[in-house]
Amino acid sequence: MPNAATEHDRSGEEISVNIPTTSKPRIVIVGGGFAGIALARGLRRVHADVILIDQNNYHTFQPLLYQVATAALEAESIVYPFREIFRNQDNFFFRMANVCEIMPQANKLKTSIGEIDYDYLVVASGSRTNYFNMNDFQEHSLSMKSIPEATAIRNLILANMEKALLVKDMEEREGLMNIVVIGGGPTGVEMAGALGELRIHVLPDDYKELDFKRMQIHVVDMQERLLATMSPEASASAAEFLKKYEVNLWLKTKVLSYDGKILTLSNGKKILSGTVIWAAGVAGSVIEGIKPELVVGGRYKVDAYNRLEGAKNIFVIGDVAAMLTDKTPKGHPMLAPVAIQQAKNLAVNFTHLLANQPLNPFAYRDPGVMATVGRNHAVVDLAWIKFRGVIAWFVWLFVHLMTLVGFRNKVVVFVNWAWNYFSYDRGLRLIIKPAKQ
Amino acid sequence: MPNAATEHDRSGEEISVNIPTTSKPRIVIVGGGFAGIALARGLRRVHADVILIDQNNYHTFQPLLYQVATAALEAESIVYPFREIFRNQDNFFFRMANVCEIMPQANKLKTSIGEIDYDYLVVASGSRTNYFNMNDFQEHSLSMKSIPEATAIRNLILANMEKALLVKDMEEREGLMNIVVIGGGPTGVEMAGALGELRIHVLPDDYKELDFKRMQIHVVDMQERLLATMSPEASASAAEFLKKYEVNLWLKTKVLSYDGKILTLSNGKKILSGTVIWAAGVAGSVIEGIKPELVVGGRYKVDAYNRLEGAKNIFVIGDVAAMLTDKTPKGHPMLAPVAIQQAKNLAVNFTHLLANQPLNPFAYRDPGVMATVGRNHAVVDLAWIKFRGVIAWFVWLFVHLMTLVGFRNKVVVFVNWAWNYFSYDRGLRLIIKPAKQ
Repeated sequence: MPNAATEHDRSGEEISVNIPTTSKPRIVIVGGGFAGIALARGLRRVHADVILIDQNNYHTFQPLLYQVATAALEAESIVYPFREIFRNQDNFFFRMANVCEIMPQANKLKTSIGEIDYDYLVVASGSRTNYFNMNDFQEHSLSMKSIPEATAIRNLILANMEKALLVKDMEEREGLMNIVVIGGGPTGVEMAGALGELRIHVLPDDYKELDFKRMQIHVVDMQERLLATMSPEASASAAEFLKKYEVNLWLKTKVLSYDGKILTLSNGKKILSGTVIWAAGVAGSVIEGIKPELVVGGRYKVDAYNRLEGAKNIFVIGDVAAMLTDKTPKGHPMLAPVAIQQAKNLAVNFTHLLANQPLNPFAYRDPGVMATVGRNHAVVDLAWIKFRGVIAWFVWLFVHLMTLVGFRNKVVVFVNWAWNYFSYDRGLRLIIKPAKQ
Repeated sequence: MPNAATEHDRSGEEISVNIPTTSKPRIVIVGGGFAGIALARGLRRVHADVILIDQNNYHTFQPLLYQVATAALEAESIVYPFREIFRNQDNFFFRMANVCEIMPQANKLKTSIGEIDYDYLVVASGSRTNYFNMNDFQEHSLSMKSIPEATAIRNLILANMEKALLVKDMEEREGLMNIVVIGGGPTGVEMAGALGELRIHVLPDDYKELDFKRMQIHVVDMQERLLATMSPEASASAAEFLKKYEVNLWLKTKVLSYDGKILTLSNGKKILSGTVIWAAGVAGSVIEGIKPELVVGGRYKVDAYNRLEGAKNIFVIGDVAAMLTDKTPKGHPMLAPVAIQQAKNLAVNFTHLLANQPLNPFAYRDPGVMATVGRNHAVVDLAWIKFRGVIAWFVWLFVHLMTLVGFRNKVVVFVNWAWNYFSYDRGLRLIIKPAKQ
C-alpha cells in the first residue's frame, strides 16, 4: 500500500501558519461541508493531526438554506461553529482560510493565510453554483449556496416588495413582485413551494396595499419533469402541488437572457421579474494546481478508494469527487449521503493506510431521496417504497431535524417550525443590511 | 388649541411616495424604536392615518444588542418586522426610507424615497453613537447601536482570535486577543461582563492553542464610578463582580488616541488591542431642517406636551427630545421607559388634539434602572428598594424577556438563555460575512 508520509519529526521545518507541530502524520482537509466534518470526526481516534481548512468558521446545513431565504428560519440556526463541533477532539485543528492552490509536488497548499504543508490531503471543497457561462445570470440572478447568499435572497424579495409599494405603474410593480426560480430540482421545487406559501399566507397581510393575485411565481427547467432525479410519481406529485399554489411551470424550457428586469425563455415568453433565483446547476469546486486531465465535469477523477487518480497522498470526497464506474459513469450524485459515506469509508481507510493494510473500496448505499414541496406535502423515494403527502412531510421534517448539527439548533429550528405551522407565519421577514464599515 | 391640519381632501395633491390618500389627517412618525412603535400602537383607534418611516423594516430591541455582539443570541431573535407588529392595525402604513430633511414650512419630509407630506409630524429618531469628535475612535472602534454593528463586533472579536493563532509574536498576539470597552455605563458594563464570561467559559475550549490568561479585558470611563447614573451600591457591586472576572477598570480616565492597534489613556498607559468597543456616549439623531436654536445637547427642545418649541404640528419623543424642566435641567434620561411613556402620553394627546381638547402634560414615572453584570448577577435600583445578585439577575431576565416583541422571539431567546445557562456555552460563535454582491 502506498504510504507517502510516515511518522517523522517536522520540528525543523518552518511552519508558516503556526499550526502546532507534532511527530504525527498530518492530514489536511479542505472544506467543512458534510464530507469534511464527517471525515474529521471519523479521524478522532486516528494517530494523526487533523487540520480542517474552511473559508468560514462554521458548517452550513445546506438543505435548509431555502428556508433562510424565505424567512422561515434564522441563518444562525442552520450553521454550527467548527470549533464547537470538535471541541473535545484533541487531534483536531482548524484554520479559517481560502485555499488558492494545491502544490502536489511540494505537498503544500497555498492559502490566504500562508502555505500549509500536509502528509495527506483530502479535498472536500464541495460544489459551487454553475452558471454554464451565462453571464446575464451570473450578474443579475441570485444563487443559494451559502448563508450570505440565502440572506441576500431574503433581503431582495422583501426589498422588492417595499419598492413595489412605491411605483404606480402596474407593470413595473408586478415586475418587482414576480419571482422566477431557474431549475426544477429539489432546491428549485422547495424554493418555489416556500414562495407559494409566502404569497398565500404571509405577504398579503404584510402588504395590504399590494394585490398578490398579480404576483407570479415561475419555475423554469430544461427537463421534461420536475425532480428529474426522482421517480415519475414524485415529479407528478410535486408538479400537482405546485400548481395548487399557482406556481407557473415551464418545463422543457431554457432561459435565454436576463437584464435584471426582463427574463426571456427559449419559447419566446418574456417574464418581468426583479427577483430571479438560480438553482439550475452546480459544479465541483475545483482548486488550482491539479492537472486538467484529472478534472471531468468540474470534478476530480478518483479511484475506488477516493484517491485522486495517479496521486499517492491526495484524496477527494463529496461533491467534488467523480468516481467513474460502470454503475456511475458520471460519478455519484452530488448529495449529502454520498459525501458522508465517502468520508466514513475514508476515515476507516486512513487507519488501514497508516497501518500499511489494504484499503476498502467505496460502495454507495442509497438511502433514498426526498424533497418537501410545501405545507403538509413532501415526496420520498426509498429503494423499497415511494410515498408522498403528509407522512412524507413529517418524515422529511424529522430527518432534517435529526441531521442538523447541535442540540441548540435543533430546538430553535423546532420552535420555528412549530410556530410557522400553527400560525401560518414566517417570523424572519427582515431586511438586515450589512454594517457600513 | 392649535390644530394645524383638520380633515381635508388630499386627493388633488401629488403624493410622491404612493401612500394611499384618505380624508383623515395624516400623522407621520419618524423612527420605529421604543417611542415610535408605542406611539403607532397607541394611535390604533385614532381617526388618522399613521405612517411610520424607518430605515429598516424591523424594530430592534436595543437592550440585548450586547448579547448579539457576544454570541449569546442570534440577531433575528431581538428584532421584529414592523409589518408583523401592525398587521391588524388598519390605519397603519409603513415606508422604509431614510429621512434627509424636515421642511416645517411645507409640512413635508424629504426622504430617500421622495417627499412625504404630513399633517402632524412626530420625530422619534432616537439616538446615535456620539464620538465627541474623536476621529480616531470614529474610524477604528466599533459602536453598538444596531444589528449590523453588533454582528460586526461579534465578527471582529472572533476573526481576531483566528488571526491571533497565526502570529508568533506574543505581543502582537495579545493585541489581537485584548478587548477594550470605552464607557462604563449599562452598555459598557453588560458588554464587559459578557466578554468576561466568554474568556472564562467559552474561548479557551475553542482556541486551545491560545493562552487566555494573557487576554485582557479593559473598561475605561471618565467618571469616578461605573454605572454613574445608578446608586453607589449598584456601582460598587458591578465593579466588584467585574473584578472577579478579572476585568481591568480604568475610572476617572479618558481615552486619548487609538490607531487600530494601540490605545492611549489619559494616565499615559498604552493598551495593545485590535478590538475597541465604543460605548461612551450617544447623542440625539437630529435631522436637517429644524432651526439650530431649537437643538440643545443634540436633542430637540420640547414643551411639556412633547411639542417642538414654537411649532404647531411637530412633536418629538424619546431619546431625541429634550424636555427641560426644573427637575430635568438637561432633559430626561435617554431610556426606554421615558420613550414609551412619552409615546403613550402623546397618543392620548392626539385624541385630545383632534377633538380640540386641552392636552395632558408629560410626567415621568421612574420605574427604576437595572443592568446585568454577568452570570447570576445583576443590579437593580427601584425607587423603593435596591438589590443585586441572583434575584436581581432573574428579575432582569424576566423583564427583558417580557418586553421583547413577539412570542416567537420570546421562545427563541428563552431557549438560548436556558442553553447558555446550563451549558456555559455561547452557540453563535459565527463569523458571517455579508454576500459579495
